[in-house]
Amino acid sequence: MDVTLCEVGPRDGLQNEPGTLAPAVRAELVERLAGAGCQRIEAVSFVSPKRVPQMAGAEEVLTALNPTAGVTYAGLVLNRRGYERLAGTPCQEVHYAFCVSETFNQRNQGRTVEQSLEEAGGVVAAAHRDGRRVSVTLATSFGCPFEGRADPGRVLSLAEQVVAAGADEVVFADTIGVGVPHQVRRLLRDGAHLGVPLGVHLHNTRNTGYVNAFAALENDVAVLDASVGGIGGCPFAPNATGNIATEDLLNLLVEEGIDVGVDIDCVMRVAEWLETVLGRRLPGQLVRAGRFPGR
Amino acid sequence: MDVTLCEVGPRDGLQNEPGTLAPAVRAELVERLAGAGCQRIEAVSFVSPKRVPQMAGAEEVLTALNPTAGVTYAGLVLNRRGYERLAGTPCQEVHYAFCVSETFNQRNQGRTVEQSLEEAGGVVAAAHRDGRRVSVTLATSFGCPFEGRADPGRVLSLAEQVVAAGADEVVFADTIGVGVPHQVRRLLRDGAHLGVPLGVHLHNTRNTGYVNAFAALENDVAVLDASVGGIGGCPFAPNATGNIATEDLLNLLVEEGIDVGVDIDCVMRVAEWLETVLGRRLPGQLVRAGRFPGR
Repeated sequence: MDVTLCEVGPRDGLQNEPGTLAPAVRAELVERLAGAGCQRIEAVSFVSPKRVPQMAGAEEVLTALNPTAGVTYAGLVLNRRGYERLAGTPCQEVHYAFCVSETFNQRNQGRTVEQSLEEAGGVVAAAHRDGRRVSVTLATSFGCPFEGRADPGRVLSLAEQVVAAGADEVVFADTIGVGVPHQVRRLLRDGAHLGVPLGVHLHNTRNTGYVNAFAALENDVAVLDASVGGIGGCPFAPNATGNIATEDLLNLLVEEGIDVGVDIDCVMRVAEWLETVLGRRLPGQLVRAGRFPGR
Repeated sequence: MDVTLCEVGPRDGLQNEPGTLAPAVRAELVERLAGAGCQRIEAVSFVSPKRVPQMAGAEEVLTALNPTAGVTYAGLVLNRRGYERLAGTPCQEVHYAFCVSETFNQRNQGRTVEQSLEEAGGVVAAAHRDGRRVSVTLATSFGCPFEGRADPGRVLSLAEQVVAAGADEVVFADTIGVGVPHQVRRLLRDGAHLGVPLGVHLHNTRNTGYVNAFAALENDVAVLDASVGGIGGCPFAPNATGNIATEDLLNLLVEEGIDVGVDIDCVMRVAEWLETVLGRRLPGQLVRAGRFPGR
């Protein structure tokens, strides 16, 4: 089994923090994660600083960053304008995202799913022209607060359309943490024929995040997103746990004999450092409980 | 698949709370759980009130209790003396436990594993004479702080010995929350030939509890222990999450199409009530996040 861990703490994690970290601190976080062996890091987001102040200054983060050889630094873009900003930076990989849910997409991105699909084509064309790989995340692939549980047929049809538009990878995201294993199984099995690597982006809001990661491993997932410390809960639900924590996921992977090349002890130290930076206890549990047996 | 949920909040949960609840309140908790449809409840423990003050007054709890028809009320005993106390109460089921780890068992129970096995035989004989069923829990079946990861061969051999001694059921307990799926799979598959129902008792200390529950379901587990609200963390590690939460487990089961006859919304209300009784937020996440889609 060949699984890639994609660390999304600096982007999906910090984006949902109440406070804003300076670009230099965000660069340090990315460097520490690269130092722990993370080979793929969603480092920045090229979105409007007015809409998401936590992600302001993507260019400054990348300039402050001392890049590690062999690490892929990815940036999130939501439209061609975002991609043009990315194109002026050393980001090698483009993460483009939109929502499966029509309502959620219109509220979140101010456009229809049809328009987001069209935009995907434009972003992919520009990125490919520049030699960049594009991973497309289908947000709310498991459910959304407005439309309920997602129809897997619709999710898979959208996956097919983004692959037809040139996407190099598709990631099914459980944006609000409602997914369960049978959904993971269905999307990965029925999406296998698309011929691109498939990933999952999981939140642990209802204690199903790690279960879904395990189900994904059982169904040959290629990419697992995770966030150091488990940061990235919804800002409107301060009690809700966010992304699955990188170190807790790694513990599961390591103990199940799956090596993704990341040093779990180093990631635990990054999580501890991040707790001091953010000034609060993070949802990851391995840092509290310690590895077993003690090392 | 025929899975029984065994609610252990009133025993393994409350036993590890820093404070002590009066027998009448513990009886109310048991009644509320029975009212939610829990068909099997580990309600009390017949241990020394000096060693475990939280469990003092098992007889008073059972006297205060207005029993619900069809519900099995179980009591934990660690020796024949404990069983004699149970025998004077309406408890229909005996839960006997000892540790797979020699060191842990000697520290925790003050006797060798060999002596605990012998005691098991005595408890089973007495209970069967009285027409009571005995479930034996093998604590630290996945690992212990003193001896590291458990040898599955040893665990299975002990399971075989307790079945030979007459145990009607064997539960593998992840007492300190270190288990991972391949261990669950191994114990359930290789224990299947024992011919008695097998269960697992899981803690979510390192975010593997629900993953292990899922792995257990995939391997035909007969009994899943869980604790309302997820109470039951180790008293010496206040940050460590305890048992898997009944309502979070039920959410996973319900969404995966497995009906154990318990009303998830009622259990959520019991967890909310318990938070007010204990005066703190409990580890279960479903109460925070709510069911999906909202009902």
